[in-house]
Amino acid sequence: MNQLRWDPTLGEWVAYATHRQDRTFLPPAEYCPLDPTKPGGFPTEVPRESYDIVVFENKFPALSPNATEAGGGATSGASAVTAMAPGRGVCEVVLYSQEHDSTLAEMPEGRIRNLVHVWADRYEELGSLDFVEYVFVFENKGEAIGVTLHHPHGQIYAYPFVPPRPKKELESARAYHAANGSCLHCDLLAGELEDGRRVVFAGEHFVAFVPFYAHFPYEAHVYSRRCAPSIADLDDAERRDLARVLKRLLVGYDELFGFSLPYMMAMHQAPTDGGDHAGLAHFHIEFYPPNRTADKLKYLAGSETGAGAYVVDVLPEHTAGTLRGAVEGAGL
Amino acid sequence: MNQLRWDPTLGEWVAYATHRQDRTFLPPAEYCPLDPTKPGGFPTEVPRESYDIVVFENKFPALSPNATEAGGGATSGASAVTAMAPGRGVCEVVLYSQEHDSTLAEMPEGRIRNLVHVWADRYEELGSLDFVEYVFVFENKGEAIGVTLHHPHGQIYAYPFVPPRPKKELESARAYHAANGSCLHCDLLAGELEDGRRVVFAGEHFVAFVPFYAHFPYEAHVYSRRCAPSIADLDDAERRDLARVLKRLLVGYDELFGFSLPYMMAMHQAPTDGGDHAGLAHFHIEFYPPNRTADKLKYLAGSETGAGAYVVDVLPEHTAGTLRGAVEGAGL
Repeated sequence: MNQLRWDPTLGEWVAYATHRQDRTFLPPAEYCPLDPTKPGGFPTEVPRESYDIVVFENKFPALSPNATEAGGGATSGASAVTAMAPGRGVCEVVLYSQEHDSTLAEMPEGRIRNLVHVWADRYEELGSLDFVEYVFVFENKGEAIGVTLHHPHGQIYAYPFVPPRPKKELESARAYHAANGSCLHCDLLAGELEDGRRVVFAGEHFVAFVPFYAHFPYEAHVYSRRCAPSIADLDDAERRDLARVLKRLLVGYDELFGFSLPYMMAMHQAPTDGGDHAGLAHFHIEFYPPNRTADKLKYLAGSETGAGAYVVDVLPEHTAGTLRGAVEGAGL
Repeated sequence: MNQLRWDPTLGEWVAYATHRQDRTFLPPAEYCPLDPTKPGGFPTEVPRESYDIVVFENKFPALSPNATEAGGGATSGASAVTAMAPGRGVCEVVLYSQEHDSTLAEMPEGRIRNLVHVWADRYEELGSLDFVEYVFVFENKGEAIGVTLHHPHGQIYAYPFVPPRPKKELESARAYHAANGSCLHCDLLAGELEDGRRVVFAGEHFVAFVPFYAHFPYEAHVYSRRCAPSIADLDDAERRDLARVLKRLLVGYDELFGFSLPYMMAMHQAPTDGGDHAGLAHFHIEFYPPNRTADKLKYLAGSETGAGAYVVDVLPEHTAGTLRGAVEGAGL
């Protein structure tokens, strides 16, 4: 059952997917459902003996293309105040590699570049569906983030609405553009490059930096220098540079504490709702590692979850310097 | 150093408090800084041999009343796009009891009632400070939420701004009032009482229910039946009933899985910014337990943190039924 319910107090949809309670939870490595299917072995999600990059529909999707009604009488409850809708969308899994123990950071730039092409392809194909308004590419990495499968993979949620965070970003960019005649993200990037203290790695077409207002200690954003609305809009040179900058940032993350750093990766770009987002949507990727030290995590507790106000115990200039040193030290 | 930085993409302040990295982290029970100071023992935060309820300023505050500048040259970086401000506010710790191993759920109703009076007192006193726009009363309970001290306690953050989540709630209530001429929360509560399936416990003046659009599986809200803007506005009978309803909900939580349930508690009420919030702010308390089962947690990962879109794997009608049964089974 895939259902959406409207929260009229926050003005946002909440997705319900009741079959997800039974999803596979941290299986032993020899029973990884994301590995290739070995000859004579149990059938995994990939019925092949080897693969490069694979995309398939999530077996336990938060949103389903077949959701056509809100759930019927037993779960009704919509009123003048609240509403329901079918949880119609697409949830895909993107396998980065057939190597069970690898991570995105460990992959050669060529593979990351191929992945950029795959992300762009999925953005275009899913975005072209008439019921999809936003294609959200992301990765949850590490048990600290709550991953249920360790095999290196990301996910794509194609939502039937523009989700709250990118929606708010777009509203801010719209107001900024109306007031200043320029792109908020372009001006932010120009400010970061001019200041320099929070820049982690500056490539020809992409720049990784810790934003002035980071919500997590080691948060980093990877911005396109050109005001490209989406990943599909990037040319070959830009895609190549994106892979190069991602590789360096991720290797730097793993150097920080000497272990493979958990993180959330979130790609923000233009909605696919048919609107004109030129000069407002500016393609970028945000990374939020939960670690505030090697052995302490940043929790999204009372202030963050109950009030929406983030509290951070280290300055972006400091973490950016550490992270920049880690990237340089990796000597790529 | 207490500093605020403006995130122009999300339109919100982020608080930086660099001394917080050194805060006390899960000390052994015999060195609890929140216990009374024993004769001849080490000095705790409370220089008395016994106490009932104690409120004191957090030693590692996210916001400080003495923050008077944004941090100076070394940390500058404000521009036309971003801004900084002093992290001026007050952070208090509220000790619920001197008993180190107790919890709010285990306390007699009389003590919870006293706590309601303390919360109301702090709301009024902190709210009267000219630099405080919002008094946020909350509790982080359990290691799953990231608590650093087990002693039963809550916290109060007096922010110099209205934080994003209550701000959004107030905006929604304002738009709803303009369109319908009534209080959004009053109408939501009326709908829940009429439907009944998500009501956990209905008292004379307060009602606990799982909202139709719960963001966490066992999320519950405790609403005042009367449209009271703040806890300070409650009369004696209402305060008594609030304690009664809280006690039942919390005992029900602990019955759910047979252990003391972790949760975040967030009190939403009128800002203290001098505005008129009658008919818009409706005092209520929200609880977000992180557990989706006895041994699995709901993580705020990619979809929630990166996109702001919550995915829940169980329907509110189902969890409300379970929770209602747990409250009834406790036989209070």
